[in-house]
Amino acid sequence: SNMIKVAVVGGEGIGPEVTDQSHRILKWFSARRGVPVVLREAQYGLIPYLATGKVLPDDTVEAMEEADAILWGATGGPETTQVPPAARKAGSLLSVRSKYELYANLRPIVANPALADSAPLKAEVLKGVDFVIIRELTSGIYFGEPRGIETLPDGQRRGFNTQQYTTSQIRRVARTAFELARTRKGRVCSVDKANVLETSVLWREEVTALHEAEFSDVELTHLYVDNAAMQIVRAPAQFDVMVTCNIFGDILSDCAAMASGSLGMLPSVSLGPPDRLGRRKALYEPVHGSAPDIAGKGIANPLGSILSVAMMLRMTLNRPDDATLLEKAVDTALAAGARTADIAEPGAKRLSTQEMGDAVLNAL
Amino acid sequence: SNMIKVAVVGGEGIGPEVTDQSHRILKWFSARRGVPVVLREAQYGLIPYLATGKVLPDDTVEAMEEADAILWGATGGPETTQVPPAARKAGSLLSVRSKYELYANLRPIVANPALADSAPLKAEVLKGVDFVIIRELTSGIYFGEPRGIETLPDGQRRGFNTQQYTTSQIRRVARTAFELARTRKGRVCSVDKANVLETSVLWREEVTALHEAEFSDVELTHLYVDNAAMQIVRAPAQFDVMVTCNIFGDILSDCAAMASGSLGMLPSVSLGPPDRLGRRKALYEPVHGSAPDIAGKGIANPLGSILSVAMMLRMTLNRPDDATLLEKAVDTALAAGARTADIAEPGAKRLSTQEMGDAVLNAL
Ligand SMILES: CC(C)[C@H](C(=O)O)[C@@H](O)C(=O)O
Ligand SMILES: CC(C)[C@H](C(=O)O)[C@@H](O)C(=O)O
Repeated sequence: SNMIKVAVVGGEGIGPEVTDQSHRILKWFSARRGVPVVLREAQYGLIPYLATGKVLPDDTVEAMEEADAILWGATGGPETTQVPPAARKAGSLLSVRSKYELYANLRPIVANPALADSAPLKAEVLKGVDFVIIRELTSGIYFGEPRGIETLPDGQRRGFNTQQYTTSQIRRVARTAFELARTRKGRVCSVDKANVLETSVLWREEVTALHEAEFSDVELTHLYVDNAAMQIVRAPAQFDVMVTCNIFGDILSDCAAMASGSLGMLPSVSLGPPDRLGRRKALYEPVHGSAPDIAGKGIANPLGSILSVAMMLRMTLNRPDDATLLEKAVDTALAAGARTADIAEPGAKRLSTQEMGDAVLNAL
Repeated sequence: SNMIKVAVVGGEGIGPEVTDQSHRILKWFSARRGVPVVLREAQYGLIPYLATGKVLPDDTVEAMEEADAILWGATGGPETTQVPPAARKAGSLLSVRSKYELYANLRPIVANPALADSAPLKAEVLKGVDFVIIRELTSGIYFGEPRGIETLPDGQRRGFNTQQYTTSQIRRVARTAFELARTRKGRVCSVDKANVLETSVLWREEVTALHEAEFSDVELTHLYVDNAAMQIVRAPAQFDVMVTCNIFGDILSDCAAMASGSLGMLPSVSLGPPDRLGRRKALYEPVHGSAPDIAGKGIANPLGSILSVAMMLRMTLNRPDDATLLEKAVDTALAAGARTADIAEPGAKRLSTQEMGDAVLNAL
């Protein structure tokens, strides 16, 4: 069939709350705009662990396995401590990323003028900010072996991890960056630490070689990661597509979150390798985490998850007009003053998670 | 004798220009305030390489060896390419840090209200920013073995580096952080990635153990590095002393530079292990690099180097009043409108490097 399968996995902490809203939105697009999706909800975390002994139970694995796209909420928080480390690890988000080879994590950073008042950066610095950080997500120091903590002969302990990249791991994520840049402003900035790390020397060589061989129409620049962190704060509007390794991408994208107004606003997608038809398994999730301090209170910002649905409409569902429609609805709601607590000015009215979902639906 | 020995090594790029000014200031303190220093100038970089085959010639090694403190400028830039990699590496800044075990790198981040207009962060976010990042400087992924680039059986290449820390490497830098916090607001924030890396798990355990054993009067908190990068931009005034590993410190301190107004303003010191009398070899340097694009033009900001002299007065020379005197003179010059190009508003008068040195001397 032409139906596209989406697994909806709210997860833990504020994950289920925010995913409820993005799920509603996705159903609206299915019912009202004829977007051909089949939605299958599935559980993750402490609840299925208590019932089945697995945080990621077989039913959820099956739903994710058959899905073209996964709409993911969040994992972690106090529940974590009630699950033994081994069970936690067996079904962790890292294991999911790895299992489906979701190697290209795209995190768009767009400054919304309506939120300039609550942002730490000056309005003139935020002006025109619209870039995408592509973070390599299934290799690097997150997965490198050997790793561990050993006891040395003198009784001291030593912790060790391995940062590592191969030619093909670098090239495939760089390819995603160059291809994306072609649909945007045509500029890629590759970030590494080639003045110190051999992994970065190889990174820079391979990105450069791929650029020369296939993407010389795209502008390629390189920055050291320390300078990149500074430039993201100093003048974030200079970037179009930034590509970097797993750990640098983790740090830089949180740093860049402040160039968008709020972490709660940021969507993301993690893409796997293309199949013969160019289709890529995709996991959509807000950049924010499980936020245990506000979980269950119904006050979390669902816009990161809702904007992830916009990304899904554009990238997996091939409905760019619907994606734009949704993004405009979010802008309309924000311009009309809809604010959850995280983006509200002191004294302003704060919407609940559900009310923010309503505001977006009303604007559609 | 009671004279304290200082080696003055301008180095490359803008290093010699800015060090000329801080050198003048140090001579002023010696001549006019009786600070007991013996200054010995020494060369570094392409010039001694062409004469002796070494970027760090024997005379400079001798000067640094006998020195209590080193006033360092900068290394790197186009000259780099005229020196073969092996010769470059043999005398690199990393090799100097390692040779003298300069494991604790202190980078104070202080927002100057006079510079609020040219900073990317809002004035209300900059208000009260006054913290110190302590970066471990002689271990971690910068120095870990094995490292390299290998060719795999299938013809692909693989780059690898080792992140590593031992108990004593963690404890000694954490000790510096706790001791510094006691002289400040009494708070240490330790930054790691303990949800992913074993090195960070050990880091957190050892910092916590040292805290419990010897520093329970200091407040200790922990942040993941991604969150720390965000918090430094969102609300930098919350921090007092931050301590972290080599690579995280490299990234976070450049990110934090923007919370101070300009990278050109930032001083630093790298401290070695205390001897029996508690004295520590110390290398003072501005945080900025060699800035090849403006080298030789006489327009670089010397305040990072001059404020490094203030740190030297306080920490090596034990002259806290003179340190404060110098810091006040810098504040006075800035308040009177003295600006080098990097911190000038568009259209404002820009001082040369030398004129900024004059402005500080006049304010003394
Ligand atoms: C929770 C953590 C393991 C994760 C990561 O570091 O990848 C998170 O910070 C993220 O950015 O998705
Ligand atoms: C030049 C480079 C090797 C150095 C580092 O990464 O340590 C610099 O960025 C610094 O922060 O001192």
